[in-house]
Amino acid sequence: MTKLYFEDFTPGQAIEHGPRLVTREEILAFAAQYDPQPMHLDEEAGRNSMMGGLGASGWHTSSLMMRMICDSFLLDSTSMGAGGVEEVKWLKPVRPDDKLTLRTTVLDTRRSRSRPEIGIVRLHYELFNQHGDGVMIMIVPTMFGTRDSKGPS
Amino acid sequence: MTKLYFEDFTPGQAIEHGPRLVTREEILAFAAQYDPQPMHLDEEAGRNSMMGGLGASGWHTSSLMMRMICDSFLLDSTSMGAGGVEEVKWLKPVRPDDKLTLRTTVLDTRRSRSRPEIGIVRLHYELFNQHGDGVMIMIVPTMFGTRDSKGPS
Repeated sequence: MTKLYFEDFTPGQAIEHGPRLVTREEILAFAAQYDPQPMHLDEEAGRNSMMGGLGASGWHTSSLMMRMICDSFLLDSTSMGAGGVEEVKWLKPVRPDDKLTLRTTVLDTRRSRSRPEIGIVRLHYELFNQHGDGVMIMIVPTMFGTRDSKGPS
Repeated sequence: MTKLYFEDFTPGQAIEHGPRLVTREEILAFAAQYDPQPMHLDEEAGRNSMMGGLGASGWHTSSLMMRMICDSFLLDSTSMGAGGVEEVKWLKPVRPDDKLTLRTTVLDTRRSRSRPEIGIVRLHYELFNQHGDGVMIMIVPTMFGTRDSKGPS
């Protein structure tokens, strides 16, 4: 497989990945460690919350999405990471036994002026459940290596 | 301890929490599960990356911050959660043996017009390492229960 460089991303391009099953056990384990709010740990507390039932921590959903991004294309790319996230929205709860799919869409691309060996690709990530409902979106400006930074080909 | 309601938050109010030690083991464990990019898993890969050494996944830092938010005040509040995050910035890498402190600052507060039993508090979170450097910021509009939604006192 050829590594993805900055030049390989074009606006509008879409990459699909999944599905990924989410288990009750991992929802509870993540919540116990990182976000022990009752609606992420207990079915009844979830029903009595705005989630309307046990639901994953938004940070768990974000972390699952990150893993899907890695497996979808990022580990086979020249990604250098990101300094932050422009927007995160948790649209619907992620439930035990949900099957998540990821859609990555390239919003725009630009080469760094000060460091031409780096290009920034703004990536729009959408996570869907098995009903086709969007559960999370985020926009991440991500740095990739440029192909010609490796010298003339 | 009295639960924190919407009315207990006032713009400019600050809450400090920590420190929280971050171990190499937990950095590696989180990365292996959720963000297996080389700079989060391997010292040499970290040195060869923009992180300049092994550094935690930004999603790990976010999850650690969430746990500190829970322990600082959120679990003793009427929080109903948040539908997203306005801004996330990872300013510096989090390293093994870093000791993190959290500062929460209330930006502004407003009562929901359609649901007066809910108030939205925009919270600005800053995470610092033991050198006083900011490692992460985020802004989260969070829903809290209002005191008078419990009926006249």
